[in-house]
Parts: sequence; structure tokens; C-alpha cells
Amino acid sequence: MTDAAADATDAYSYLGPAGTFTEAALKQVPDAAGHPWNPVNNVGEALADVTSGRAVAAMIAIENSIEGGVSATQDALATVPGLRIVGEYLVPVNFVLVARPGTTLADVRTVNAHPVAYAQTHGWLERELPGHAHVPSSSNVQAAASLFENDVADAAVAPPGIDAHHPVDVLATGIGDNPNAVTRFVLVSRSRAIPPRTGADKTSLIVELPDDEPGSLLAMLEQFSTRGVNMSLLESRPIGDALGRYRFVVDLDGHIEDERVADALLGLRRFSPNVIFLGSYPRADKQPNEYHSKYDDAVYVEARDWLRGLLSGEPEA
Amino acid sequence: MTDAAADATDAYSYLGPAGTFTEAALKQVPDAAGHPWNPVNNVGEALADVTSGRAVAAMIAIENSIEGGVSATQDALATVPGLRIVGEYLVPVNFVLVARPGTTLADVRTVNAHPVAYAQTHGWLERELPGHAHVPSSSNVQAAASLFENDVADAAVAPPGIDAHHPVDVLATGIGDNPNAVTRFVLVSRSRAIPPRTGADKTSLIVELPDDEPGSLLAMLEQFSTRGVNMSLLESRPIGDALGRYRFVVDLDGHIEDERVADALLGLRRFSPNVIFLGSYPRADKQPNEYHSKYDDAVYVEARDWLRGLLSGEPEA
Amino acid sequence: MTDAAADATDAYSYLGPAGTFTEAALKQVPDAAGHPWNPVNNVGEALADVTSGRAVAAMIAIENSIEGGVSATQDALATVPGLRIVGEYLVPVNFVLVARPGTTLADVRTVNAHPVAYAQTHGWLERELPGHAHVPSSSNVQAAASLFENDVADAAVAPPGIDAHHPVDVLATGIGDNPNAVTRFVLVSRSRAIPPRTGADKTSLIVELPDDEPGSLLAMLEQFSTRGVNMSLLESRPIGDALGRYRFVVDLDGHIEDERVADALLGLRRFSPNVIFLGSYPRADKQPNEYHSKYDDAVYVEARDWLRGLLSGEPEA
Amino acid sequence: MTDAAADATDAYSYLGPAGTFTEAALKQVPDAAGHPWNPVNNVGEALADVTSGRAVAAMIAIENSIEGGVSATQDALATVPGLRIVGEYLVPVNFVLVARPGTTLADVRTVNAHPVAYAQTHGWLERELPGHAHVPSSSNVQAAASLFENDVADAAVAPPGIDAHHPVDVLATGIGDNPNAVTRFVLVSRSRAIPPRTGADKTSLIVELPDDEPGSLLAMLEQFSTRGVNMSLLESRPIGDALGRYRFVVDLDGHIEDERVADALLGLRRFSPNVIFLGSYPRADKQPNEYHSKYDDAVYVEARDWLRGLLSGEPEA
Repeated sequence: MTDAAADATDAYSYLGPAGTFTEAALKQVPDAAGHPWNPVNNVGEALADVTSGRAVAAMIAIENSIEGGVSATQDALATVPGLRIVGEYLVPVNFVLVARPGTTLADVRTVNAHPVAYAQTHGWLERELPGHAHVPSSSNVQAAASLFENDVADAAVAPPGIDAHHPVDVLATGIGDNPNAVTRFVLVSRSRAIPPRTGADKTSLIVELPDDEPGSLLAMLEQFSTRGVNMSLLESRPIGDALGRYRFVVDLDGHIEDERVADALLGLRRFSPNVIFLGSYPRADKQPNEYHSKYDDAVYVEARDWLRGLLSGEPEA
Repeated sequence: MTDAAADATDAYSYLGPAGTFTEAALKQVPDAAGHPWNPVNNVGEALADVTSGRAVAAMIAIENSIEGGVSATQDALATVPGLRIVGEYLVPVNFVLVARPGTTLADVRTVNAHPVAYAQTHGWLERELPGHAHVPSSSNVQAAASLFENDVADAAVAPPGIDAHHPVDVLATGIGDNPNAVTRFVLVSRSRAIPPRTGADKTSLIVELPDDEPGSLLAMLEQFSTRGVNMSLLESRPIGDALGRYRFVVDLDGHIEDERVADALLGLRRFSPNVIFLGSYPRADKQPNEYHSKYDDAVYVEARDWLRGLLSGEPEA
Repeated sequence: MTDAAADATDAYSYLGPAGTFTEAALKQVPDAAGHPWNPVNNVGEALADVTSGRAVAAMIAIENSIEGGVSATQDALATVPGLRIVGEYLVPVNFVLVARPGTTLADVRTVNAHPVAYAQTHGWLERELPGHAHVPSSSNVQAAASLFENDVADAAVAPPGIDAHHPVDVLATGIGDNPNAVTRFVLVSRSRAIPPRTGADKTSLIVELPDDEPGSLLAMLEQFSTRGVNMSLLESRPIGDALGRYRFVVDLDGHIEDERVADALLGLRRFSPNVIFLGSYPRADKQPNEYHSKYDDAVYVEARDWLRGLLSGEPEA
Repeated sequence: MTDAAADATDAYSYLGPAGTFTEAALKQVPDAAGHPWNPVNNVGEALADVTSGRAVAAMIAIENSIEGGVSATQDALATVPGLRIVGEYLVPVNFVLVARPGTTLADVRTVNAHPVAYAQTHGWLERELPGHAHVPSSSNVQAAASLFENDVADAAVAPPGIDAHHPVDVLATGIGDNPNAVTRFVLVSRSRAIPPRTGADKTSLIVELPDDEPGSLLAMLEQFSTRGVNMSLLESRPIGDALGRYRFVVDLDGHIEDERVADALLGLRRFSPNVIFLGSYPRADKQPNEYHSKYDDAVYVEARDWLRGLLSGEPEA
């Protein structure tokens, strides 16, 4: 949170500074245009802005196609109450190598890089800068900014477009080891209103299993499979009190207003000692949810009508 | 249906004549006292009395502890529309050997017996009357009655108490091979009113599987197991159009007003191309239904309230 | 068993007399040609001939497309030790109405019929002979034979071809209510040799469940589904000691020498307190067994080789 | 890899420098005593030492009770061929705050800390040093070492015992937010020999699912549940080629020489397009594996003997 935005209850918080991939994700949000944007230092600050009311929403990274789930985000969503995911955004992830003006690639001995960025460019760096040293940085943009704060490093791994924010020379572009790398972001708010169903939706949950017995995870998955609900993400995260105790981060295909999803949520709620509904929201990839026609809303409605008829004692039609 | 009772819309039909095990079952029904009782010749006639309105209810055998399910009953319940099971009754099954007065055991060469009764006394008959011949009869009481219609047989296998109806000599008692044999009867009516929940209930269904693929039976059973609903009976019956096509006769522990049973019925209705609800009614053995507390009604209600809260957008309590 | 064949250890037993559907099934067995054939009175006698050595094999009915499983056969296979099914045969089931010479359809008041035959022609008889009486008979052929033993009945329901065995007039043909009705027979022997695998095989089992807990039937079915083994028959039969205790008659697609079937048998044996292998044999319908290629024998062999390599400590290829 | 140890084929590699938690784990390995120890910079270097033969084994962190799985380790084990886990070790994780001699807690404005250590001491630091800045470091020991390389930070978060390696003052001890935090390490080698079964063993696997269809994860878990094999860890990791494609890191209770585990591995190998056996090894916590007696080795052996008897055609005992 920055001081200028402290009172802005319509502000959006994001991992700053300007130029980060998170900012690129926030630029995809039409509603955010024209509002104050709070650059913050980490996920915790972003979510604190939301819970405290300093921001209406925060954009946070939740998964990277190479590195996997962002643990800090997953754990924060599991433990900070009152949060809802209201949107999902994808940002292609690539990197450039930048340096103070006048530096050449041959000069580079030490490289500033956020650990995740370093991991994703490690192949290129090993090949082009054999024997280089790595200095970790707290963000991709900070890696570049540090070049002008001290001379520990000769170059920095940074996002494309960094030269709009800092007077760097770009020594190389496209240095990511995987050209298809992408990071998934979610927009988080306190709003209890659920975004309307679009037919291409995702529902996110945090689920604890009832106990450590063999088969409880299987029983959880059956809650989905018996309703034809596909699970696009399952990640375990330690609850933190002891080794071997986990909660699960789950993404389902579909919206809470889809009958099959609502029914799976009921089953899950009955089954789990703790299930957190993080939200239903449009999928970033806009791929329509696929499911067998036997799980259509109409099938659920017909079954309920049938049961109601039985219970009421009315003759069958 | 007998002519005397033809117009009696408050009559009870049963497999007659007087003295059968079915009559013994009907004697267990307090509501039947004081009403006309129609003895009929087979299950088809009994159910036709009910559907036509000639009887308010019919008592029919549905399962024997030795012989298994009564196919004619199961098939009739699957194909005659509009029937409901409203009660269950158990009758211990034992047999006596009877003959025309003056006959001794040593005189007996040929034995009249309903095929099911013959099967259940076969051990005794082989031991005591080696080399005897068997003449099949259409009912246990008719076996005894035939002794006075022709002299094809020398003795008959009949229910205890038969000497109250026919002037026979009882040559031997307790001739059933299994002293614990019992037959289960159900009282069937057209009433849409479901007997009140007692906590010791049974729910009967006929279910067709969606197709012949591996796993559809498994999927059906999961509808029960994921709700903690125990199944006390599963019998397959041919649909009749081709070898290998079956419907299933299912008894569940519990009442349609039990949340877990209702939810299983919903799942089943969505899953199956054809599911027939035959009724919820008190168990004859009065054993309270057992289930894990995680399937309590309150758990279902709480989950529904939770879902409703999420959908309404209200803050969580 | 007839006296003539008493010592014939190469005889075949079947439900007689000549002219029954069972005989028609036996005629389909090439190996039976030229051997003595023992007509017997019931399944028990047929199997006793096999276990005592009076016959090398017995042909017995096991399922009818209309009436379902033949309980006496299923129970005998579950309780008589040392039997194996070595072949399966299908016989179309249809009926004719026959009478003593000179009788016309208009003369018929009472009909001799085996109860199963009566059930399968009941619609025709009700339509063509309204108000007729039924006298049960112990076999389809005996129904016709009785016409010449007494005059209780005016006509008999009998198999086509009965006029080759008895001097009857055929009053009507094709009187079965379902023209596609078929009965499935099995040939049973004491041989431990398993018929060779043909790719269109069936494997028959009797299985008891470990206990009465919810889910044990589900666990049994998972033994098949996790190996891609299709189940073509599942019938419950009372064990007989108490209501609610069942064993299961199971037919699987495939042969014990199919890896997936063998593996399912292993799983079943470990799971069940009592599993009886009744045999693997060619299917009567000669339909090749279908299964997903992921359950090919080669997949099982490769996995075993892999495991063996791991256990031996050899480097992977 | 350090130059001194370059040729030591009996060396052990670990994340250095001396004083790290990884070194503490290596000290628990009796076989490592008296051998050269190679301090390396990251997991990749440690495993490269093993695959190249520069080390016989490497100690690497695989999971932290607070932070969860170590992604770099999991991904390396999934992609570097020929590695085996041969031992598991637990190290309690706690931290001290250290500074250059003469510094007091009141002087501290900026703190050097490895990101994971910073996350685990964040509560204490926020409370005791409100408003402090964080400088990330590449290891816990390096955080302390940096104090003597530059003056960017005033203090460092470091492991207990760091004062044996660097001339620091300890400003505070026990600053970890969770006093029960523990890190799990594994010893990795190229050896194909599997450590002997102890009855308190763990088996580690990497498994890919056959496709993205609903239910494939369920099908994988059934491979374990149908054999009574408990799963103590399940983590998804992106395969890396696209969002939504995962492999799974699995720990099972038991040893590959346990029949139930071997059978589950067979099932898994048949099911999965790619399953990597990472090893069976004694559990660090020495807790005996628990399982139902129906999954005893003897049950598997008996079933195999039974099947072999059936296939051989021998009479049953």
C-alpha cells in the first residue's frame, strides 16, 4: 500500500512496482481503469489492503505454468477470511536481460534476479553467461531498479517493457527457457456478489479432509466424479501444525449456479470439516465448460421435482 | 379375487386359500382386521385386485431366506404401475406332512407339494421316505386339498395349522430342512401416502442401469455409499427383452424423509433411465437404521443453509 | 440317472426325458455324440451323477431370458464341491399346445404345464383359452406325457418336436409370449482342465462378501473395474442361514488365462472369505471379449518385468 | 561441487556452506562419517554431483512442514534420470537473529534472510522490528556471511549454531513463528540396491496421469486404496509444457518388497504413461507401517498359490 492511495476505497492493489507481470494482469481488468492502483510488496500486503478496505480488490499471482502454485497466495487464501476470487487472468511470462547503460553482455559477471525469474531463465544464463553469480531480488522490477541502488550486480533479469520504467540497456530479449510460460493471476475482493455465470467458469475451493485415514482423499474426489464435475487443479498445502497434515486447493470447471457444481459443494460441505468457497468466476481462457448431458441443470431440476412429488404424495404425472 | 368380495373396495387380497403363510402374514396387519379378505391364486391376481380397486391392499411374498427373491413378485412390482409397498412382515416357515385319515408314514409313496415347499423339505423327505415320488401343487394349502380331490398322492407337505382347514392326519411336524427359514412379505397398495418415518425403515426401489458399459453398476452403488446409505438387498432381474439386460431390485436402510436417502434418490434419478420408487415403510424386524453421524439430517440441512448463504451473497455468520 | 447308464463313466446327464430343451442343448455338444445320455429328474440328480462318476458331464439350465437365473442350479454350484463349467449353450425357447388325438382347441378347459412354461405362455393362454385351469407339471415333456397317464388335463404346453416322442395332436405353435426367449445352459464336469482360451470366453464365479458393512459389494466390483473386466452377470442368492446374507453369482467377460482376469481373481481371492472358481469356457454367442487396450496382456507382462527389474536392482533398460 | 572434492567418488554433496540445516541432516547419516562432504549451491548442483559420479550421494530438502514441498527438488527428481532416494531425515527448523559484533536489536533496520526463513520468522520480525526492510539471501548461512561482505543489512536470520562459523553476535534465539517446524530431507544416490525392508518404510514415486479426463486421478488413488496402501504425500507439480498439465509426487507407506505395495506399483505402471520409482527406504520417524491384516503378505501369497493351482489344473487341497 502506498500512502497516496491510503484512503482510496476504490483502489486496486498489485505487486509492484509498475512494470511487473502483476501490473500487466491488472491492465486486463476493464473495471480497474480510472481507479487508483496501489503497488505493494507482497501478497500479504495486497490482501491486507482488501480486508482493511484500503482497496476494493487485489491482483495476485496464483500459479505459474513452470513453477506451479504460488504457495504464499494459496496459504493466504486459506487463512485470511472473507476473501473472494472474482476474476482470472493469464499473462505470458518472458524476460529480458538489462544493465546499466554502456554495459555489454561480455561484462556481466553477476546477475540480479527474483528467484522464480532466475529459475525460468537458468538455461539461457548458464549457456550465455557461464560462471555467472546470482543475487536474489524481491521482485522482477526491483531486480532492475537495484542496478541503480548499488553495484552488486552487473545485469538484471526483468520483464519486457522494463526500459519504460528504468534507464536500462536491454542486452538480450526472450531469455526465458520456455517460450510458452504463462502465469495465472486472480483478482481478489471482499464482495459477496458472485460474478454471473457465463458457461465458461471456474470455481475455487480450499478443502480439509476429515482425517488421515486411507481413502479420505478418494472420497473427496468422488464428490466431484459422481456429479461429472471436472477438477482442473488439485494442490496440497501443509496446514502447518505437523508434517503430513494437508489442506487442498481445488479448482472445478463450472459455476456455483450450475446444479452439478452446487450439488458437489453440498457433498463437500457435508464431508469436510472445513471447506472454504473462494468464488466462481469466468475462466481466463474462455473455454466453455464441458460435461456430459446427464449432468445438465434440467436433469437436476427434473429429479428434484420427482422427489418433491413423491414426498407430497401426489400421483405421478 | 373371489366374487363375494368383488365390490369390496376395502378388501385385502392374499394368496389363498385360508391357511397359507400369506394369510399368516396378513393376520399381522392390525388395519386388516374386520375387512373382507380375498384369497387369490397368484401374485398377478393379487396385484390386479389392487390396481382395479377391488382391494385396498394385497399381501404378497417377496423373499424367502432359503429360496431367495420371489421372481414373480419382483417382476410384477417392476412392471405394474402405481403400486406402493406400505408394510413388511416376516413369517417363520415350517412344514408338516399330512395325509388322508388312516394313512401311516409307511404307506406314503407319492407326495403332493408346492415346488418351493418341496425344495425346503427335500432333505427330510429323502431321509424318511427314500424313493418317494413328487407331484407338484400350485400352493401349500392346495397340496393338502388335493388329497381329497384325487388319489394321485398319498400325503402332502403343508403349513402348520392345515388340520384346521382340512380333515387330515398329521404324520410328521417340523419337517423343514432349515428350522430358521423365514419368508418376507410386503403389503402393497395404491396409496400415495408414505407411512411415517419411524427410524427403523426400509426403502424399496427398482432401478435400470443407463447402459451396459463396465462400471454402471458400480456408479449406482456409489450413489448410496457416498451418502452412507446401506443397501440390504440387491437382486438382478432380467428385463426380458434379451439375455444380459437386467434391472435391479434394491432395498435401502432408511426412509425417503431421511435426508441421506432423499439425496441418494435424487442421485439415482439423475443417473438411471428408469427408477421406480416402491415405497418407504417400517422394517419388520424393527431394528433402528444405523448410519454414521456425518450423514445426519442436520448435516444436510447445515450444508444447504451454507450453500443458500453463498448464493444469496450474504456475509457468512 | 437311469439304470442302463449306471456304470457308464463316459455318460452325459441331462434333465429328461428326451425332447426337453436341455436335451436340445446337449445336442449342441460335439463331444457328447456317441456317448450314453442319462435323462434325470432335476439338477440335483444331474450334478450327483457328475460328482459320483456316473457321468462325465451334465447339461443344466442356468438362466432364462424371461425368468432369470435358475436358483436351483446357482445354489447347487455354490454348494456342491469340485464342479466346473466347461461350456455354455443357448436354446431358443418356444412352446406348442398339444392334446390327445381328436381334441380341438374349443375342447380345452384344463392345461398341463411346467410352472415356468406356464408363465411364459400365460398371455397366449389367457387370450385364447379364457377361464382355463392350470395343472402344474414337473417338466415340459412330462406335461405332454401326463395326457396319456390320466385325464386331469385336456391339453399340455410342451416343447416343439414333442410329437416325435408322444402321439399328440399339435393344436397351436409359437404360443410363447416372447418370441426371443432363450435359455442359457452350462455343461458341468469334474475336470480340472480348463478349456483353451478363445478370445470369446466367459469366467464364472461364486463370491461371498467379507461382511455386511456398507461398501463391501462396491469393493468387490472395484476388483473388476480397476482391471477393465466387464461383468455380464451379477445375481445374489441367499446363503440360507439368515435373511440378508447373500452370496453372488458372477460372470466375467474373459478367460482365467487373460492377465486382467487372472489379476482380478487374485484381488477377489484376497478380498473375499470364499470365492469359488466355476470355470472359464467359450461363450455361446462367440462374441469376442472387448476391453480397452490398456488392459492387454502385454501391459501386464511389461509391468511385471518392470517390477522384477526394480526388485533385482538391475539398471533400467 | 567444490574443487577439493572434485574427484572424490565417495563424497557426499549437500546445500552448503557448513552450518545449514542440510548439513545437520547429513550429520544424521552414519555412513557419511569419514567421507568428504561437498557443500554446493543448490539442488541442481547436488544432483549433478551424483549423476556425474562426483558424489556417491546428495542430501536435499524435499518438504517443510510450513512451506510445503520443495519444488526444485520435486522437479529435479522428476526429470533427472537414474536417481534413487535411499534415506529420509528430519531436522527441526528454528532460527536466530545475528548481527555484526556490537549491534543491538534497537539498531536493526534491515534484515538479511533467505525467503523461506523470512517467511517462517515473519511474525516475530513484524512484532519485534516493525518497519524493518528485508534483503533476500541465497541461503540461511549466506545471510549471516553477507554481514561481513557488505553493510546492506544490519542483521541476519540464520540457523542456530551459526556463531560457530561466523563471528556474529546472537541478538535473539527461537524466532521461528512455529516452534514445531521441521524440514524433511532425503539422501539421493545412483545405487540400484534398495535399502532392506524394516517394517517402517516409505516408497516414493512420480506419476503422470494417462490423460486429462475427469476421474483419472481418482483411478490412480484407487490403485492404492484397493490394496490398503496409505498415501502420506500427494503433490501436484506442473509438467511445464502447458497450464493444467500435472505430474504427481507420491509417498506411500510401505516398501516395494511388501506384497501390497508391489501390487499397487504393478497397477500404477499399467495405468500410468510414466511412473518413476524413486525408492523404498526407512522412514525417518520409524513409525511402523499400519495396514489391515487382509493386506498381509501371506494373503497375497495364498491367492497366488490358489491361482497357480487353478491354472495348473491340479485338484484343490
